[in-house]
Amino acid sequence: MVKRKMIYEGKAKQIFSTDQDDQVIVHFKDDATAFNGQKKGQITGKGKINNKISNFFFELLEEKGIKTHLIKELNERDSMVKKVDIILVEVVMRNIVAGSLSKRIGIEEGVVLDKPVLEYYYKDDNLGDPLINNFHIEVLELATGSDLEKINEMAFKINKILKEFLDKREIDLVDFKLEFGYTGDGEIVLADEISPDTCRFWDSNTKEKLDKDRFRRDLGDVESAYKEMLKRIIGKGEL
Amino acid sequence: MVKRKMIYEGKAKQIFSTDQDDQVIVHFKDDATAFNGQKKGQITGKGKINNKISNFFFELLEEKGIKTHLIKELNERDSMVKKVDIILVEVVMRNIVAGSLSKRIGIEEGVVLDKPVLEYYYKDDNLGDPLINNFHIEVLELATGSDLEKINEMAFKINKILKEFLDKREIDLVDFKLEFGYTGDGEIVLADEISPDTCRFWDSNTKEKLDKDRFRRDLGDVESAYKEMLKRIIGKGEL
Repeated sequence: MVKRKMIYEGKAKQIFSTDQDDQVIVHFKDDATAFNGQKKGQITGKGKINNKISNFFFELLEEKGIKTHLIKELNERDSMVKKVDIILVEVVMRNIVAGSLSKRIGIEEGVVLDKPVLEYYYKDDNLGDPLINNFHIEVLELATGSDLEKINEMAFKINKILKEFLDKREIDLVDFKLEFGYTGDGEIVLADEISPDTCRFWDSNTKEKLDKDRFRRDLGDVESAYKEMLKRIIGKGEL
Repeated sequence: MVKRKMIYEGKAKQIFSTDQDDQVIVHFKDDATAFNGQKKGQITGKGKINNKISNFFFELLEEKGIKTHLIKELNERDSMVKKVDIILVEVVMRNIVAGSLSKRIGIEEGVVLDKPVLEYYYKDDNLGDPLINNFHIEVLELATGSDLEKINEMAFKINKILKEFLDKREIDLVDFKLEFGYTGDGEIVLADEISPDTCRFWDSNTKEKLDKDRFRRDLGDVESAYKEMLKRIIGKGEL
């Protein structure tokens, strides 16, 4: 199975076709962007770490009954996944107030939510990934009502699994973004990635940020935060 | 029943206490604001017209089984209403794409929606009245889940009643904002107003705007648009 043509390049990943119509290779880059691409940079080694962390989480979720796009890790930066039609809804789950939620509803960062908050964002860079609701999703024909229900159910279950796992490793799962897609046979699976690029992770004791907010907010020690997360999750900070 | 102390002043209305604890007087002003108060002006005669139109609609809705705060019209600019605790959620119903919906989801103004779209906005000037969802409403403790369900049901029913009424008068009900409140005995009633300040009305044939967008967008003929709406609704354009 060799990489063939690049069929898509995102901010942090490239997607290559393979000799199987229903499989593609995801290649994790070190490129980092923030604020809808206005801020650009590199986080050395990020691609390797995110490939490893994301695959670890996807395997954990598969074990717990969540269908994902993951087929197998190929090498440090490449993974084989099912080819999916991405649903253009970014599903955000939140356990603690941070980032845009704090600005939107006027509650300060760090407030622990009684129950998880779920949000939908329209995956559209030109529109700045706006918050949307289920009516907007219907108008835009991004997903049917019953698919949305299934996605919600998966998102809450994923949150529960990840939260339990991370609590034991003294990491607060503050919030995270999920993307889902339809496989060739119409099944909804978890796609994209789960990594410090797409989650907010705080050290449970010091509340130190161990995620892309270090890059977004120029907090320094970005690379070591990613390594620390790798260590907490897989038990070692080097690959 | 005389006006007593002003207990609240909003952008377009003043509220006065009365000698009844559970009743207040709403006074409709000619003041107009837009863009969260950044644009200010006056629309001569607006207060009278909005008082008349809003009361007309509230009576129509009461006849069709929707509970409202309205008790009775007192004079050209004043109405007696039930005192309510306003729920800090602005409920927007949309039948045709316009305004912020067009910007949010990238569909051009004028596109007729297959089904009405319902949106919640957090009534908070400091935060700029942001779009929120039912999870945010729960976190902010603005309304319970079952109250929200009731509000949704009322909003869809109100839309149906107003749309039918206005269709016959060759007015497109593009979108409108509703506010609800709890009466002293905990009942949810429709409050605030329904007027060219809070609705988008388009002439069904010419698509001419007959609402506050004429003020917002400096389209001119603001006063005559309000008078035209009065005429379409109550049959005469002067009071």
